[in-house]
Amino acid sequence: MADFELYGFAESGPCYRVAFMLRACGLDFAQRPVDFFNGETRTPEYRATINEMGEVPVLVHGQRKLAQSGAILAYLANLTGKFDGANEAEKLEILSWMLFDNHKLNGLIGTLRFMVAVSKSGETPVTGFLRQRVTGALGIVEAHLAKRSFMVGERVTIADFSLCAYLYMPEDYGIDWEAYPEIRQWLARLKAVPGWQAPYDILTRASPKRG
Amino acid sequence: MADFELYGFAESGPCYRVAFMLRACGLDFAQRPVDFFNGETRTPEYRATINEMGEVPVLVHGQRKLAQSGAILAYLANLTGKFDGANEAEKLEILSWMLFDNHKLNGLIGTLRFMVAVSKSGETPVTGFLRQRVTGALGIVEAHLAKRSFMVGERVTIADFSLCAYLYMPEDYGIDWEAYPEIRQWLARLKAVPGWQAPYDILTRASPKRG
Repeated sequence: MADFELYGFAESGPCYRVAFMLRACGLDFAQRPVDFFNGETRTPEYRATINEMGEVPVLVHGQRKLAQSGAILAYLANLTGKFDGANEAEKLEILSWMLFDNHKLNGLIGTLRFMVAVSKSGETPVTGFLRQRVTGALGIVEAHLAKRSFMVGERVTIADFSLCAYLYMPEDYGIDWEAYPEIRQWLARLKAVPGWQAPYDILTRASPKRG
Repeated sequence: MADFELYGFAESGPCYRVAFMLRACGLDFAQRPVDFFNGETRTPEYRATINEMGEVPVLVHGQRKLAQSGAILAYLANLTGKFDGANEAEKLEILSWMLFDNHKLNGLIGTLRFMVAVSKSGETPVTGFLRQRVTGALGIVEAHLAKRSFMVGERVTIADFSLCAYLYMPEDYGIDWEAYPEIRQWLARLKAVPGWQAPYDILTRASPKRG
């Protein structure tokens, strides 16, 4: 039996960032596939026993059951001593970027990508709104990476694992990636981290919707 | 001169949560008003010298200049030993709720409230989308608070300071607060924290738009 069990599915950026971190830390984990598209994360049973927030990923490690991918990254960094900030200032800078990412980047890309590439919503006022916000956030990250190789401290940290999440997904949801050369080079650099794999190679995908 | 300088304005939930924390910790701070509605946070100069993310709040403490209200709360908890988790498990639980809050609660209320109550957008597909997401997140917090007095560990922590931010604002943006009795009782309990003040009493408001 693997040391870590990861509730999740490949199409989720938050699941991907945790799976990438587990592999990069050399930790042995097993995926517990979650039938997201048939509503498994939103059942009363899932909320009562797995995650009250009704989300993936959830990481089980012995008696610990952890929700929120950013908190899981912090837990694994504490546990292994890998990919963490070198001091309090760096740790706060990492936290700052992870909060920004949840609020303005991957937190919104998740919904935009789901609407455009999964639900095939077409262009709507909501996708336009989300894309404008995402584009603004990408511009901030692009400017940040113009002056450095990684998000914090000139080496790979959990801030990078957080921000890269959906950016490795292959679907088109209407972002012109040519406009972000610094981000593209940073994503190429992160691929050199031992253990890196593309999202759909690292985890199995969720079931398609039945009926 | 005050020990801490807080860039911000009263209408911002992220500024409010930091100001409330500073007061609750008994720290001496001065507000540096920011002319948000005339675009001060989005100028190249502000991004270059104050905060590359183009946001408030920013907390200045000696040589330190900190962005992202959640990271500022963590810094102040480290510094004072107040309102922090008692152990690693509690600290991770706090981080988990702060990430949830940035992603799904206050992170979205900020935009919804701005559109409806400040820009007077009226109801649009985007406000409908945001309100549905916010309502879902409020339901999760309501269920969580049905079993406890505060978000984590049965006493006030920075998770409470994070989540309460926009919930004390007086404007109507179309949420039926009668549906959330646990949240209303929790907000009433938090008012008993020494130093609590309503948002528009704790900081000065931003300038109205000129022209």
